[in-house]
Amino acid sequence: MKRHPTMRWDASAPALYLIDQRVLPRIVRDVRCTSAAQTARAIKTMAVRGAPAIGCAATFGIALEAARTKGFGDAARKIALTKAFTALAASRPTAVNLFWALARMQRAVDAHRGNGPKAGAALARTLARLARAIHAEDIRINRAMGQHGAALIPQGARILTHCNAGALATADYGTALGVIRAARHNITKVWVDETRPFLQGARLTAWELMQDRIPVTLITDNMAAHFMQRGEVDAIVVGTDRVAANGDVANKIGTYGLAVLARAHRIPFYVACPLSTIDAATAHGRLIPIEERGREEVIGHAGKTWAPRDVRVANPAFDVTPARLVTALITERGVVRAPNAAKIKALLRDAD
Amino acid sequence: MKRHPTMRWDASAPALYLIDQRVLPRIVRDVRCTSAAQTARAIKTMAVRGAPAIGCAATFGIALEAARTKGFGDAARKIALTKAFTALAASRPTAVNLFWALARMQRAVDAHRGNGPKAGAALARTLARLARAIHAEDIRINRAMGQHGAALIPQGARILTHCNAGALATADYGTALGVIRAARHNITKVWVDETRPFLQGARLTAWELMQDRIPVTLITDNMAAHFMQRGEVDAIVVGTDRVAANGDVANKIGTYGLAVLARAHRIPFYVACPLSTIDAATAHGRLIPIEERGREEVIGHAGKTWAPRDVRVANPAFDVTPARLVTALITERGVVRAPNAAKIKALLRDAD
Repeated sequence: MKRHPTMRWDASAPALYLIDQRVLPRIVRDVRCTSAAQTARAIKTMAVRGAPAIGCAATFGIALEAARTKGFGDAARKIALTKAFTALAASRPTAVNLFWALARMQRAVDAHRGNGPKAGAALARTLARLARAIHAEDIRINRAMGQHGAALIPQGARILTHCNAGALATADYGTALGVIRAARHNITKVWVDETRPFLQGARLTAWELMQDRIPVTLITDNMAAHFMQRGEVDAIVVGTDRVAANGDVANKIGTYGLAVLARAHRIPFYVACPLSTIDAATAHGRLIPIEERGREEVIGHAGKTWAPRDVRVANPAFDVTPARLVTALITERGVVRAPNAAKIKALLRDAD
Repeated sequence: MKRHPTMRWDASAPALYLIDQRVLPRIVRDVRCTSAAQTARAIKTMAVRGAPAIGCAATFGIALEAARTKGFGDAARKIALTKAFTALAASRPTAVNLFWALARMQRAVDAHRGNGPKAGAALARTLARLARAIHAEDIRINRAMGQHGAALIPQGARILTHCNAGALATADYGTALGVIRAARHNITKVWVDETRPFLQGARLTAWELMQDRIPVTLITDNMAAHFMQRGEVDAIVVGTDRVAANGDVANKIGTYGLAVLARAHRIPFYVACPLSTIDAATAHGRLIPIEERGREEVIGHAGKTWAPRDVRVANPAFDVTPARLVTALITERGVVRAPNAAKIKALLRDAD
């Protein structure tokens, strides 16, 4: 079965179509964006989510803005693009791919010479081409990670994953789910944490893997420890929104708890991590900003409320797993066991 | 504010009124039972839940059946009562209080002498009296546990609890929440896990503590580790559905994971446990039957579905925490630190 794409660029309009991840799997529909502001709103409201997908969507958001303003005067276009970068950068704080992708687009803007309507059209073409290249590159990277990661998965493995680090979280194929896809012939079961509060596991990962006929068992987040205790989990594979220079991993809330549980049960804990997710400028995980989201996500789901409406809540969207709990990072350049600052520095140097 | 009672016995009908815990906190209504079958159904469907509350409800269920059949012939009454015991015992498998409470009622039935309508009426009176005594006793026990447990809670403490071991889970006052109530002047915050899939924390514990103006912060289950990592949890206090002879603790799914996390973060892990919850006949936790509940609880909540409808799920309602992870059991006879078979044997012997 051909999956509905996570994002689709229509060059003729131009327009960006994002599968609306807030209503999956009940409703399969796209959000259509024709400006950076609409794209930023789609990111903020989690119509699109997942670190690599956010990065790709943001590059298309810049390309849309360049197209929308190509006929503007030079000064007005410059102001609009600056606003676009600002709005997209402010859409979500934790995933570093967003900033990495915007920085690549900014370099292309900065390198662009010339003035007038012709230059505006040329810039729009350049930025659209770069956004499409980053999108295509993300898929290649995910497939490479999948190959490297698959070598870690033993025959008959039962893998636990959290949140959605799949095709829906990337341009396609996925990071953690890319590893699972590449290793599927060795995998007998994928435990999918439902991943409260946004339920990415229940709504997105279960749906995505079922479309590929990979055997899924859905559980609530608090059941993971029980199945580890029973010896029914052979490895944990998750994605990440940002890896610090020392190997600390920011990922969806609940990841840190799984890492502690994995260590207590001697279960390997793998993080699928494209190099674009490593933030060399952030020394360690405690420096990574953790997004606090709204109370409505915790007191219910999708407009249905079950807790007392006036209850105080906390809603950190991410947590930080210290590098010492990470068995290995899986990157497109290979597997980094027991990651630390020196290994990550060497990895990034080799990649340059 | 006077709380709506968890259960209320109307001697005139007779009838048992149970607050309907499936629709709290949105709707405060009672389920009215006038037979053992209705009471068993209320337990099975979780209109009433919580180990001590189930035990109390079951005793009233037997009393209702004795009243309903008091005018029957001796043989018919005996058959009806036997059926009542069977139905109530089959309602839920994990909480031992149910079996303990039914055994007390059975002893009263067995001790009853005489035949004919007069004997039927006398038996009904005896069983109603015993059920009310067990109910009153449960409240006294909870208050005693609260006093013993409060001594463990340091000044300014931030306590995390899971599920609902409160007034709603007992005759009144609660086990774990009884400790929190008794220690409330030392407590600055109660972290309440929402407790998927049935959401006892979000729906019941948050509501119950807010009525008493105890400061609650509601979180999803997978956030607990994050706040432990940040040093914002000083102790964990939970209830239990059954404690094995060696101190292993069966409690709501998610409890075991919390215990592992507590140990990793050097946070004390306390279990409020009336003696009626200790099952001396079960040597260790792996022998405790773990109820597997329906798939509809995991794919959504209260009729709203968010996961793919045909996804495979697992839904163990309880898990088992090994005694080595329990800092102390809090009982009505005092605190048992680092529980083990010898200490529990001594505790039960002293109580006899």
